[in-house]
Amino acid sequence: MRPLQWIPAWLLLLHGCAAAQLPQADNTRTDIRDCSTDPPYLPPTATDTTARVAALRDAMWALGVQAYVVPATDAHMSEYISARDARLSWLTGFTGSAGTGVVTQDKAALWTDSRYWTQAERQLDCNWELQRTTLIESIGMWILDAVPIGGNVSLDPFLFSIDTWNSYSQALQGSGRTLLPIETNLVDQVWGGERPPAASGEIYSLPEAFIGSSWQEKVARIRQEMEEHVRHPTAVLLSGLEETAWLFNLRGDDIPYNPVFYSYTLLTNTSISLFVGEQRLAVAARHSLQAACPGPLCVELLEYGQTPDHLRQYVQGNVTVWLGTEYTTYGLYRLIPQEKLLEDSYSPVMLAKAVKNSKEQDLLRAAHVRDAVAVIQYLLWLEKTVPQGQVDEFSGAQHIDALRQAQEHNRGPSFQSICASGLNAALPHYSPSNGSSRQLSVDEMYLADTGGQYLDGTTDITRTVHWGTPTPLQKETYTRVLMGNIDLSRLVFPPNTAGRNIESFARRPLWDVGLDYGHGTGHGIGNFLSVHEWPVGFQSNNVPLTAGMFTSIEPGYYQDGEFGIRIEDIALVVEAQTEHQSEETPFLTFEVVSLVPYDRNLIDISLLSPEQIRYLNTYYESIRERVGPELQRQQLQEEYNWLQRSTEPFPLDSAAAAATSATSTLALAALLSTLLPGLQA
Amino acid sequence: MRPLQWIPAWLLLLHGCAAAQLPQADNTRTDIRDCSTDPPYLPPTATDTTARVAALRDAMWALGVQAYVVPATDAHMSEYISARDARLSWLTGFTGSAGTGVVTQDKAALWTDSRYWTQAERQLDCNWELQRTTLIESIGMWILDAVPIGGNVSLDPFLFSIDTWNSYSQALQGSGRTLLPIETNLVDQVWGGERPPAASGEIYSLPEAFIGSSWQEKVARIRQEMEEHVRHPTAVLLSGLEETAWLFNLRGDDIPYNPVFYSYTLLTNTSISLFVGEQRLAVAARHSLQAACPGPLCVELLEYGQTPDHLRQYVQGNVTVWLGTEYTTYGLYRLIPQEKLLEDSYSPVMLAKAVKNSKEQDLLRAAHVRDAVAVIQYLLWLEKTVPQGQVDEFSGAQHIDALRQAQEHNRGPSFQSICASGLNAALPHYSPSNGSSRQLSVDEMYLADTGGQYLDGTTDITRTVHWGTPTPLQKETYTRVLMGNIDLSRLVFPPNTAGRNIESFARRPLWDVGLDYGHGTGHGIGNFLSVHEWPVGFQSNNVPLTAGMFTSIEPGYYQDGEFGIRIEDIALVVEAQTEHQSEETPFLTFEVVSLVPYDRNLIDISLLSPEQIRYLNTYYESIRERVGPELQRQQLQEEYNWLQRSTEPFPLDSAAAAATSATSTLALAALLSTLLPGLQA
Repeated sequence: MRPLQWIPAWLLLLHGCAAAQLPQADNTRTDIRDCSTDPPYLPPTATDTTARVAALRDAMWALGVQAYVVPATDAHMSEYISARDARLSWLTGFTGSAGTGVVTQDKAALWTDSRYWTQAERQLDCNWELQRTTLIESIGMWILDAVPIGGNVSLDPFLFSIDTWNSYSQALQGSGRTLLPIETNLVDQVWGGERPPAASGEIYSLPEAFIGSSWQEKVARIRQEMEEHVRHPTAVLLSGLEETAWLFNLRGDDIPYNPVFYSYTLLTNTSISLFVGEQRLAVAARHSLQAACPGPLCVELLEYGQTPDHLRQYVQGNVTVWLGTEYTTYGLYRLIPQEKLLEDSYSPVMLAKAVKNSKEQDLLRAAHVRDAVAVIQYLLWLEKTVPQGQVDEFSGAQHIDALRQAQEHNRGPSFQSICASGLNAALPHYSPSNGSSRQLSVDEMYLADTGGQYLDGTTDITRTVHWGTPTPLQKETYTRVLMGNIDLSRLVFPPNTAGRNIESFARRPLWDVGLDYGHGTGHGIGNFLSVHEWPVGFQSNNVPLTAGMFTSIEPGYYQDGEFGIRIEDIALVVEAQTEHQSEETPFLTFEVVSLVPYDRNLIDISLLSPEQIRYLNTYYESIRERVGPELQRQQLQEEYNWLQRSTEPFPLDSAAAAATSATSTLALAALLSTLLPGLQA
Repeated sequence: MRPLQWIPAWLLLLHGCAAAQLPQADNTRTDIRDCSTDPPYLPPTATDTTARVAALRDAMWALGVQAYVVPATDAHMSEYISARDARLSWLTGFTGSAGTGVVTQDKAALWTDSRYWTQAERQLDCNWELQRTTLIESIGMWILDAVPIGGNVSLDPFLFSIDTWNSYSQALQGSGRTLLPIETNLVDQVWGGERPPAASGEIYSLPEAFIGSSWQEKVARIRQEMEEHVRHPTAVLLSGLEETAWLFNLRGDDIPYNPVFYSYTLLTNTSISLFVGEQRLAVAARHSLQAACPGPLCVELLEYGQTPDHLRQYVQGNVTVWLGTEYTTYGLYRLIPQEKLLEDSYSPVMLAKAVKNSKEQDLLRAAHVRDAVAVIQYLLWLEKTVPQGQVDEFSGAQHIDALRQAQEHNRGPSFQSICASGLNAALPHYSPSNGSSRQLSVDEMYLADTGGQYLDGTTDITRTVHWGTPTPLQKETYTRVLMGNIDLSRLVFPPNTAGRNIESFARRPLWDVGLDYGHGTGHGIGNFLSVHEWPVGFQSNNVPLTAGMFTSIEPGYYQDGEFGIRIEDIALVVEAQTEHQSEETPFLTFEVVSLVPYDRNLIDISLLSPEQIRYLNTYYESIRERVGPELQRQQLQEEYNWLQRSTEPFPLDSAAAAATSATSTLALAALLSTLLPGLQA
């Protein structure tokens, strides 16, 4: 899935643009809007926010608030949010996934990153300044300018992570302005009855066949970690929606793409409180959770809204609460006295979830075989239909979604398909929409970054293709992106290496010729959970790699205004076979579980080293072995033939090394020609 | 220089052992000492500390202190400390460079890392427990066990960095024990008249020829950065001894190996205060500093001890003080009100010093040419004398020091020479001493990690050699270490890449066969300053790489109880020539400025790729070009001949690629033999 979008809003805010290497503030750009004329010029896509902003200002006035900060996140720092949580979008008209709004009595501004600058200009009206950065320092400086000394800067503490709150706190420190948390959300107050209702869909248990271990086993394991921890925490507080879903083997559909539901969990050494609302649970799920009641393996079901009160009461006792600071809100955090806190970046549940056991690994592998069938069907269909001029980006995206839907256990796409043709693929934030979608053509490259949710696993794969004659630059850059994918995939590395320390292997073939890509190299993925599953990956805040983790490997190259390339596979971290073994724990490497061949039309095989070619041929062999039988089982003979053609082994002597061997070959040939002049016909 | 030793004590404490990848606590080990018998068994090298510890306990008692923490650092977090600052060593008998002691009324313990465990067992008496870790959490837990609730834990705030103080503070947080800074150092108090006197040697100006820019230019530049900073700091506080030495182009000899002097600087937008003691400055130096008095370029000279009072007074005003938290002490930090602080990891002076201008680059290059002459003389001398059995590690170390001393502008070694033979080279903390030094032999590998101080630059180089027949493992691992050195040295990478993100290229050839090394890959270096110059290098707290920075590149391999390999060069970050140029700023690569060939006897050329061989041949060409003439100028004809032999180009067809080319060559040969059976004699 597209590597820029998958950085959750909270991360973008937290680390500024560094993580995504997004361009920084750009003040030279001219706005599509012209707010200097009367009436102002606004594109027809802009939303009139005058009444909303005025109502918010009234609410602020009543509480003595001089500035109010509105984030794009929900209370769980979710990557996707429900319509009910789209406060920033309702208030500003801006529908991008990352941004922050600040309103004062006479000004209002929206901060967002370069992916969304054009979109924001099209959607904002003249109530809103657009600030082209996401650095909290910048927001802080704007606030210092707009709010007089002595003023209150307010926000909803349940919508800001601990780390983000600390950044605001630091930005205002010593400035004479007070950062004032207000638990009543002022946007919700003015949104009133128009606000979409709370989610009420059924929450269900995963079928037994798709469960890696029972929730009781998971709970026992976490409790053991609590006992063994030097601080002996008495409870773990779970704020991430995927934490609770994983722990209890439950799923729901409260937010798009990720099969999770609104909830919190307080898992103590003697009790389990699940804040979700009893009536939302399917009967079987409720029974599974409460079979052992009363007792330490009885799940007490409480209303979602009771979480703060319950936590407040729990921390009265002689307790220590363990939580993950990257995604727990300041609102919950501040309820816990400092000496009763055990802070880590991620909770032990988040870390346990990241390492898949052998059953979970097999489930994810199986999902990827069926997913490969759908993608292969798609690639063959494109090959046949694109030359007829009948496919555009949007209909293409619909077709791959439909192909996946037809595969067993599919539960829809795992994110909005990114199907981009020609220059659109160079825009990292591009997704096609009906009506404004580019026609696919044999004269352009096409990038498809898509994925599916299956009961056994979540998938995410990107293939870039060209059906005609690619330019030399396209072919060279595609090959170098592939070389980077291969070099990282076949890397052997010591246990507990941080992804950040090895991701450059995916960049080096581009670096060699002065090129690079401006996004991360990969992210974790779940078993029918998030397509971007933290904390696995190659960024600075990811945890070290361990056998059993799954990550995407997705280098790319983007030529502005011309084309875009990305080659993405999902890979499992496995033990490596090495000549020497210097430590008790074996070295690691990757097993690629995405099983779709690359476009031969775009590979300049002469650039590859013999090792790269050998790796590629071995990978293709495993595709044949694992996807071939499934294609036959599904009676997809044409696809089967396509797969055989597309996975023909590459000859080793076409490698880059051949350039060197040429010397000695030529020497022999020269000798031959001397000895046998007759051969030179 | 040896990569473990160069991690300053404050860094080891701050980051635990992660940075150096040192082994963690090991409680299974048995101590050389036996404190359970009466009288206890102690090696003769142990120091009787009973009276010292008792005196310290009396001093603690008088002040109501239940635990007193004694670090190994000085007030500037210097890597090397003077005898006057060796408080931990005096109190405990332990002379290692990294450690922490804690004394209570009935217990005392020393924490140190694995480099020093054996040494500590040999030097401590039974007053001291040995704790085999350096994690502050471990020290904190020991304190919690030893000090009752309500007790005071004290330390000298001028010997702890801000970050280290914070770690102690966090370890005791909410525990009911108070972390109490006491400005009178209690060890100094009991040490009394026996404590060595303060440094009084002359402080001198660098000769004009060795100055990269005048101190006035440097001051102007830092003031400009202050002005341009969004927080508009009014002053920069310099605590690092190398910061003040660099800023004013002054040098001294207060501590071993690094030509610096005890000092602080407060550089404000209108004044310059240098805390050093006027009488210590050479006349010319004083004149250079005060030529523009009074005025903004007048350096006010104040006593070293006046720093806290002066700072306390300065921060009464409407000011903002900029400082580096990695090496400023908590003692100074706490004098500055929070809202008047601008904290960065490193001061702007530290960052400016890290990027050498073209004159400084030329100076460092020139120093490395003369240094190469000394090392080449040494390698040839070893080749001739080792077979006669006349050299041991200690006499070898003395000889290289003497050879450097004979070179122009030399000012002694830049660190204690590491000359290790056979299994000793596998100990990362090994330095030979007179009397316990291993004989060099043609049957063992020999590692020499040495460096010099020259007026124009500081050098640091490691070569590993074998004069007989290396084992296949020695040859393979040496070659892989060399391949790693080459791969990192020839890497092309984007501007502002963090060293941490590329250092794995130096490890990969070892990783491929399941091997690795347990230390960092490189560190910055100065112009006649520190051999370990922060913040350049490949570790997580180093700053991104920029053209003009110098770093060592020093992969290694250590086979316990058998041999050790390290290949270290100094390299300058330079702009790269690339096929494409995607950004306004060009990509970067390294220019290796250490100019000594590697041991051909240990290179298995068949493991190298054609690119690696090409790189090596080009490097050897540059050695010939730059060191050859200097050897001739110094009339070292034998060394010149040795250099020519040692830098013969390697044939390209011996590369790893040849293995592949063999196929096609063989095919042709087969054809040939078919056509010309007579050729098969």
